Amino acid sequence: MPRPPPRVPVSPIAEGSATLPAETARYVAAVHRLTVGDRFLAFDPESATEAEAEIVEVRGRSVRVAVAAPRAASVRPARRVTLIQATGKGDKMDAIVRDATELGATLLVPAVAMRSVSRPGGDKVKRWRRIAIEAARQCGRGDAPALEPPLPLLEAIARFARAPGACFVLDGDVHLSEFVVPLTREASVTLLVGPEGGLEETEIAAAVAAGLQRVTLGPLVLRTETVCAAALGALLAASVGTRPA
Amino acid sequence: MPRPPPRVPVSPIAEGSATLPAETARYVAAVHRLTVGDRFLAFDPESATEAEAEIVEVRGRSVRVAVAAPRAASVRPARRVTLIQATGKGDKMDAIVRDATELGATLLVPAVAMRSVSRPGGDKVKRWRRIAIEAARQCGRGDAPALEPPLPLLEAIARFARAPGACFVLDGDVHLSEFVVPLTREASVTLLVGPEGGLEETEIAAAVAAGLQRVTLGPLVLRTETVCAAALGALLAASVGTRPA
Repeated sequence: MPRPPPRVPVSPIAEGSATLPAETARYVAAVHRLTVGDRFLAFDPESATEAEAEIVEVRGRSVRVAVAAPRAASVRPARRVTLIQATGKGDKMDAIVRDATELGATLLVPAVAMRSVSRPGGDKVKRWRRIAIEAARQCGRGDAPALEPPLPLLEAIARFARAPGACFVLDGDVHLSEFVVPLTREASVTLLVGPEGGLEETEIAAAVAAGLQRVTLGPLVLRTETVCAAALGALLAASVGTRPA
Repeated sequence: MPRPPPRVPVSPIAEGSATLPAETARYVAAVHRLTVGDRFLAFDPESATEAEAEIVEVRGRSVRVAVAAPRAASVRPARRVTLIQATGKGDKMDAIVRDATELGATLLVPAVAMRSVSRPGGDKVKRWRRIAIEAARQCGRGDAPALEPPLPLLEAIARFARAPGACFVLDGDVHLSEFVVPLTREASVTLLVGPEGGLEETEIAAAVAAGLQRVTLGPLVLRTETVCAAALGALLAASVGTRPA
């Protein structure tokens, strides 16, 4: 089985001839060692489009390509999943952005909860976007989750928990399965995951007032990054009678 | 709400008076700063038992405790889950052991697949056991998954994939949900997760011959450690009409 051509993030994608941005040129020529005549799949996670591309000239560090007509990305998540994720210690959010991208989240809202240990600034968003695009490239996803700048949790709930679809806060006693198994594969879902120390009562009350259902994955106390992966995995595998796209 | 007493791994647990092993004594006195009269919950992940304990004497680094009658662990996974996990690069298996413990795996079988980059020796098992016990302590689980020494994958399939219950290899095109949603919450499950580069055709054929169903979590290419967390999360949330213990 021949290896599929490498996927290279390019934004925006336009049909025709183009010189690649320096970082992309380096990636194509130095990391993948592609040269004139080699092909790759250009994908634009912003617009969820992709196009075949062929290298037509390499001169020093400059790489020129011929890009075919863009088409809609072939692989995208089946449902819209908003993850409101309380920020945690150290680089936990890096791992969460990577996992959430692989597991199909479409909007990530980092939220500073009362017990959040870290209060990341807006400058972190650029880093998280880069991680999300790299994870999208690796997992073959044609889009990347949108990323909001960090918000205070109560504001995040007010703005994002009223989205259409099922909304859950992972801090309850009714099993998540009760709610997600009956969902269709396309139904929108919003998940709120608390910080290491859990959510404060006032935060849970605000979530419930905004319409979130209190749910649990069971009696074990999961790390916040494990909750994210397990709950998104549960959503991927929750709906009966559906096939992967 | 008062904080629950700390959980301290002690093996074996016996009713009566005892001097704690040096490492446990350090943990109790230096990490948790407990002293005479303080209580903790001693738990033995080997036997899945637990007992209330009270510190009766601290002399230098020596800690004596009075242990109440042991009882069966109050929190254990609802089903038996065997994870046959192909070994990966670097410390991936450390993270997988931690996640799998939190997410209820009961037997971990590290397996060296044809495309496995690392071939860990039996000496790694001691390290993974320590990680599993620490994860069990943190997540409130009264047992810890059993850990086999690393085996060649075909041998791991021959020995462990014939267990009773549903058996899956995460390398197919029928969605995992088709199979797991109808399972009862107590049904045993065996999961085989391949290495970074995927399983070889001969390995998949051996798995299928041993009775494993080929399944997928969707069209995205997940890292091996993400597969583990997502698939175990899917099992936790798969069964309708059940409540957490």
